[in-house]
Order: sequence, then C-alpha cells, then structure tokens
Amino acid sequence: MHTLEECCSLIEKHINRLNIGLKAPRNLYEPIEYVLKQGGKRLRPAMTLMACNLFSEEVQQAVMPAVAIEVFHNFTLLHDDVMDKADIRRNQPTVHKKWSENAAILSGDAMQVLAYQYITQSRQDLLPSLLQVFSDTALQVCEGQQYDMNFETRSDVSIEEYRHMITLKTAVLLASSLKIGAICGDADKQNVEALYHFGISLGLTFQILDDWLDVYSDPKVFGKATGGDILTGKKTFLLITALERADAATRSQLTALLNNREIADDVKITQVKALYDRLDVNRTVQQTIDEYYIETMQYLQKVQIADDSRKEGLKNLAGMLLKREK
Amino acid sequence: MHTLEECCSLIEKHINRLNIGLKAPRNLYEPIEYVLKQGGKRLRPAMTLMACNLFSEEVQQAVMPAVAIEVFHNFTLLHDDVMDKADIRRNQPTVHKKWSENAAILSGDAMQVLAYQYITQSRQDLLPSLLQVFSDTALQVCEGQQYDMNFETRSDVSIEEYRHMITLKTAVLLASSLKIGAICGDADKQNVEALYHFGISLGLTFQILDDWLDVYSDPKVFGKATGGDILTGKKTFLLITALERADAATRSQLTALLNNREIADDVKITQVKALYDRLDVNRTVQQTIDEYYIETMQYLQKVQIADDSRKEGLKNLAGMLLKREK
Repeated sequence: MHTLEECCSLIEKHINRLNIGLKAPRNLYEPIEYVLKQGGKRLRPAMTLMACNLFSEEVQQAVMPAVAIEVFHNFTLLHDDVMDKADIRRNQPTVHKKWSENAAILSGDAMQVLAYQYITQSRQDLLPSLLQVFSDTALQVCEGQQYDMNFETRSDVSIEEYRHMITLKTAVLLASSLKIGAICGDADKQNVEALYHFGISLGLTFQILDDWLDVYSDPKVFGKATGGDILTGKKTFLLITALERADAATRSQLTALLNNREIADDVKITQVKALYDRLDVNRTVQQTIDEYYIETMQYLQKVQIADDSRKEGLKNLAGMLLKREK
Repeated sequence: MHTLEECCSLIEKHINRLNIGLKAPRNLYEPIEYVLKQGGKRLRPAMTLMACNLFSEEVQQAVMPAVAIEVFHNFTLLHDDVMDKADIRRNQPTVHKKWSENAAILSGDAMQVLAYQYITQSRQDLLPSLLQVFSDTALQVCEGQQYDMNFETRSDVSIEEYRHMITLKTAVLLASSLKIGAICGDADKQNVEALYHFGISLGLTFQILDDWLDVYSDPKVFGKATGGDILTGKKTFLLITALERADAATRSQLTALLNNREIADDVKITQVKALYDRLDVNRTVQQTIDEYYIETMQYLQKVQIADDSRKEGLKNLAGMLLKREK
C-alpha cells in the first residue's frame, strides 16, 4: 500500500523524466516544462494512483494515465490564465506574461495533445474506456469554464447553476482522476461509480470552501490576501447565497456596493462582509461545507473492498484538501 | 469504388449530423458549428476515405476518423487565426472577430477534444495505432505553426528549414489523413508508408504552389489579390529562394524594399517581382513544383494493389489540388 507522499513522488519522478523542454522547437516546449515544473501539489494524479491502489498492488499501470491528468489540468490553468488575463500563478509570472499570448495558446494546444499521448500509454484493453472518461471530462471542464465566464456578466445566477458550473469546472476532474485510477486497478463498476461520486462531492466541498476561505480565512495562514473575489465581483457560493437570501432593498445595496468603483478596496470588503453577516451567509456556508463533507465520506464508505484500512490514504487526502486552514 | 464527390458528401452528411451547435452552453458550441459549417473542401477527410477505399469496400469504418481529421484541421485554423490576428476566413468573420478571443480559445480547446472523441469511435483493434498517428501528427502541426511564427522575425531562414516547417505545418496532416484511411482499410505496412510519403510530397508541392500563386496567379482566377505575402514579408519559398540566390547588394536591396513602409503596396509588389525576375525565381520555383509533382506521383505508383485503376480518385484529387489555376 502506497502513502500519499509515495504517490506524489512517483508522479514527480515521472514528470521530471518526460524532458519535454528539450524537444524542438524549444520555444514551443519550454513553456510546457515551465508550467509542469512550477509545482502544484500533484493531488489529482496522486488520487489516480491511490484509487488504483485500493484494488491492485500494481500502481505502475496507472502512472501514465495519472501523468496525463496532471498535464491536462495544467493545460487548463495555462489557457484559463490567458482568458482571465492573470499575471501570476504559483507566485511566478504566467506563460503569456513571461513569453507571449501566442506562446501560451500554442503551447497549451500541444500540452493537450501530450496529455492524450500519455493516456494512450495504458493497458490496451482499458484504452477505450479510459479515453471515453478522459474526453468526456475534458469537454466538461471546457463547459465549466464557459459557464464561469458567462456568469461574469449575469446577476441572476442561481445556487443550482453555480453548483452545475463548479461540478463541471472543478469536481469532474477530481472525480475522473479517481475513476481512471479505479479502472486501471480493475475495480468493478459499482466501486468505480462510488469513487466517482466521492470525487464529485469532494470537488464541490473543496470549491465552496475555497470561496469561503477567500473571504473569511486568516490571510497569514491562507497565504494570500482575502477579499479578492469581492473586488472582482466573482459569482461565488457566498455572493449567490447572499443575493438569493436578500430582500430587494438589500440586494440593490449589495449590487451597488460591488459595482462601486469609487470606494477603497478595504472599505468595500468590510462593507460586503457586513452585509454577508447580516444575511447570515458565513454560518450557512459553513453548514453547507460540513454537510457536503459528511456526504463525501459516505460515498467513500460505499466503496467495497476487503480491507477498509486501505481507504486511509484517500481519507487523509480528503481531510488535507478540506481542512486546510479553515 | 467511391468517387471524390461521394466521399466529400459522405463526410458532409456526417458533419451535419453531429449537431454540435445544439449542446449547452450554446456559446461554447456555436462557434464550433460555425467553423465546421463554413465549408472548406473536405479534402483531408475525403483522402482518408479514398485511401481506405483502395484496400477495402467498407469505407464506413473510416468515416469517424476522417471526421476527426476535419475537426482537428478546423481547430488549427481557428487558433491560427487568433494567433495571426486574421479577421476573415472563407469570406466570413473569424470566430474571435464574431464572438471574442476567449470564445475562440475555449471553443478551439473543446474542438480538439471532440476530434479525439471522434477518432476514438473507430475499430477497437486499430485504436492504439490510429491514436498514435493522430497525436504525433497533432504535435507536429503545433511544431510547424511555432516554426512559422519564429520565421517572422528571422531573415536567415534556409530552404531546408522552410521545407521542414511546411512538412510539419501542412504536409503531415495530408499524409496522416491518407495513413489513417489506409490503416482503417487494413493495408499492409509498406502500402501505408507509400501513401504517407505520397501525402508528404503532395503537401510540399501544394504549399510551394500556394506561395507561387500568391505572387504569379491571375487574381481573377485565384479569387484573391496577389502579393499579400510580399506585403506581410512572409518567409515563402519564393522569398527564401531569392535571398539565398542574391548577392550581398541585391539581398540588402530586397530586404530594404520589404521593410519599406513608405511606398505604396502596388509599387512594392511590382518592385519585388522585378527582383524575383532578375533572380530567375519564377522559373526555379515552377521547376521545383514540377519535380515535386513527378515525385508525388511516383509514391502513388509504389502503392501495390491488384487493380491500379482504383488509384484514379487519388490521382484526380492530387491533380485538383496541384493544377488549380496555375
């Protein structure tokens, strides 16, 4: 049985061995290597290996599909940063800042192909089902990103629509990381599905917590300034909850506040937080997170294996993802 | 045996059946449908069907891989237009003009996934080899686009580098269209390779002819104004031939002329053409095209099938591609 640390370092070793940056033309492949070596916690590919390891000792057969998932995930970050005009990722300049927008577009395109090359390096009898999961997921992630961009110009996004968006943009990739690992470990269909639902639920919890942390966490612990989502007017779980719950007058007040470009950032954040408090948003969201966490763990219980202690790794990973600095 | 027209209409029918534009979110999928329905001659997927049809009556099994190639080809045009800031494609506004740059990036990403979904809908025993050809080709097309962009800021591109660039950017996709069709038709390895070389040679001839037409064709017949490549200073086969052949003084004169932003477009075109004539570029390039054409047809002769008359369709297609309005 492999620990989370062992899984992460196995992935790290394989990513380092790809030597993508040495291929020609260098200025196509160097941005890819740059993105892949910026780090990140390798949680998705580690989940693939750990899901495989629930059912099989041969985690090796899940390594290249796991690498494919990590490469795909980083490709989405690369193109999202172009679309969001983000300058910084993981404390370093983004590719379109360091090279150019064209470099970011084209290197991203090549990265998506590389991800497919890696997933193709799996057991041939599993290839059709792995490809189906991988492509369906990739398309859903694009759909999620499109919904997220569409929400920017809307003020009537419902909690249901938000849930659908983060399911597509965030949760399905976590869920498919587990599903692909389980398929590589020859898990039966019921276990594959239980793990998939565990991943979806984990992803939703993770994203809602992420929204909460952006407003309520301790900046010293969270590692970045709070209130960023308030300043950009992002349609987070908190804002949508507040808008749904507010009466007409409070909703106008909140909307006017978010659109106000005259007041200082810290004043805006303080005033929005005061409105959130008045609407009991903080407590509601914390309750939702707790409920989702319980549901998440229930899905993991539905996975049927002889030795339940093998689930400890995934439990720890979920705890790590969700407890963070709350 | 299917004719070129039958192959094209079979592809057209299947592309129309995809109903991509109906999927949600609409603003992700509508640009994809727009691009796919703008037309284009469907030559690449038709080549896939015709290559399959050399060896098998069951062209149906090559249809989805052929559709995958057409979708991939259109994806590359979509992203290339963003990178080249091109406003018009096939007499209509490009996606980033009609929607937005972000729409063009994200819809392109989704299109690449769709292409993989379609190629996955092939005979399962062929899947590993089809995917390998497809991914290798996709990566080479990205590499070709990168070299092409790199050439923009260089003045010392050699004919050899140019050949390598157009092999990657243009020829490998034509060659792989044939290769994938041949694999679907269960052709033996030698025939698959002969068809691949036929495609490479055809692609190189096609691209060099395209460069020639941009300068020497009749605008009324060619359908667009000539001299566009001269005005943008594009590193074409003609310009590189001229720069390689010119003495130091003429080379300076040509470079200065291309960089001169003061003179009128038609004057610049006339003067560059005069320099080309002095350096005998027109005749050299026409000779090269003729030599490549002979080589192309020799590769087709190397394909060994019982009934050589089955090659007529591909011969016609090559003739159509290369004779055009020269």
